[in-house]
Amino acid sequence: MDEHNDNNRSIEERLRAIEDRLEIYNLIAAHPPSADTGANQFVHAVYTEDGIIDLAGGKHASGNEAIAAMVQEPGHRAAIQGGLAHFASLPHVQIDGDTAVVTSYLQILAPHPTAEPVEVPNHGMSRGFRIHRVGANRWELVRTQAGWKIKRRILRPLDGSEPAREILRAALTACEDRA
Amino acid sequence: MDEHNDNNRSIEERLRAIEDRLEIYNLIAAHPPSADTGANQFVHAVYTEDGIIDLAGGKHASGNEAIAAMVQEPGHRAAIQGGLAHFASLPHVQIDGDTAVVTSYLQILAPHPTAEPVEVPNHGMSRGFRIHRVGANRWELVRTQAGWKIKRRILRPLDGSEPAREILRAALTACEDRA
Amino acid sequence: MDEHNDNNRSIEERLRAIEDRLEIYNLIAAHPPSADTGANQFVHAVYTEDGIIDLAGGKHASGNEAIAAMVQEPGHRAAIQGGLAHFASLPHVQIDGDTAVVTSYLQILAPHPTAEPVEVPNHGMSRGFRIHRVGANRWELVRTQAGWKIKRRILRPLDGSEPAREILRAALTACEDRA
Repeated sequence: MDEHNDNNRSIEERLRAIEDRLEIYNLIAAHPPSADTGANQFVHAVYTEDGIIDLAGGKHASGNEAIAAMVQEPGHRAAIQGGLAHFASLPHVQIDGDTAVVTSYLQILAPHPTAEPVEVPNHGMSRGFRIHRVGANRWELVRTQAGWKIKRRILRPLDGSEPAREILRAALTACEDRA
Repeated sequence: MDEHNDNNRSIEERLRAIEDRLEIYNLIAAHPPSADTGANQFVHAVYTEDGIIDLAGGKHASGNEAIAAMVQEPGHRAAIQGGLAHFASLPHVQIDGDTAVVTSYLQILAPHPTAEPVEVPNHGMSRGFRIHRVGANRWELVRTQAGWKIKRRILRPLDGSEPAREILRAALTACEDRA
Repeated sequence: MDEHNDNNRSIEERLRAIEDRLEIYNLIAAHPPSADTGANQFVHAVYTEDGIIDLAGGKHASGNEAIAAMVQEPGHRAAIQGGLAHFASLPHVQIDGDTAVVTSYLQILAPHPTAEPVEVPNHGMSRGFRIHRVGANRWELVRTQAGWKIKRRILRPLDGSEPAREILRAALTACEDRA
């Protein structure tokens, strides 16, 4: 929110801040395709060696080797075979030098196994999809020689419990200087 | 859509247009976190003093004091406790000097209270979430000394009625010079 | 992902790459409004004359005349009257000179015709919306004198079948040089 207040920045600095932002958008946009195809090599490449993933329900892994292995677990592969889709909202991005925090919402979708099929004109019959989970994501990023990488990802369910709201509130503090 | 047709713009003007766009993305991305945490101070800061919010069903408020108070109403707080999630699509942004119009879709989600729990492999059991509302948002923004702020927000339900389509059509008129 | 590795690019080249990206975001963000209002003139303008649309279920059209006509078909208009909403995720964008590939997720939503109405505090009663389809989109774009246009769009259902995963995997290959 401070882009226009800092008039001392050079063109190079401003271009770099913009390119950082766009690179980060692509990094976040690549998460659903990697999760929904079990792309362990990609996951390995976008987490730092000491990266941490901290999902809801106590699912946790340390190190990009272990994190990459998660998307190839038999259970995860079974979910993919069943039609898993991660769906990402417009993320909020705060860059501070060589680190960044991204806050985003995530839906985890799967085909509904039993709902009565419904027809939508011109769009055929379908049982439709269920929203299995909705969560708040906090992505802590660092700049590396190989581009922006994920140092820590935290996901908490938006089911009325406090931890998800803590993640969301943290996105707003960066904007408070607006007031 | 006219970025490449205007070759007379200076580097400064082009950088500023880009920074405006990215600042606006973050402003729109901050809406769901503020709505889902009842962040009245943040809402106060991002609306102009004479800002207007015009939601579906006749819910309406004038002035950033009144708009900020909405997210702290007992009913809204009860919705948050129940697991409210605003989910934002990729927005369409048209900037025209010191004003801008953003058109976006919004889902309002909440945990399903009664659906039969379903298991997704590796993702546990869940009753899932309902999409309570889907709407088209029109955000009218103005540039201020403290960054881009919201002067008027209009939300209309995408339930087949005309007002939502009017909002969506207005986003396309800015692109018509492409033809 | 290579923005910072190519230090030989001029300011002009860097600005142009950024402006390309932002123009493409608006092009993709305009798809749901055009589909949900039947905006055939807009669709005609954003596809190349020899453009191709290749939707799931064998729905296919060649040429921007035929593609534009699709959103005015009686069946599509009936779906719009019923409350059709296309909902777009954050897209992944790979630009390579005068061509680009965009990978995105899409939800096709419609009001639930029969579900038991549920009340969400402060948000009224609603039968809610169904997710009728979830798909992976591949958009192949080309730069023209009139801005970026769509040369081919492929949509495949995320129902566990292979073609959607092929689309998603292709988005990740562009990132593999990160490893």
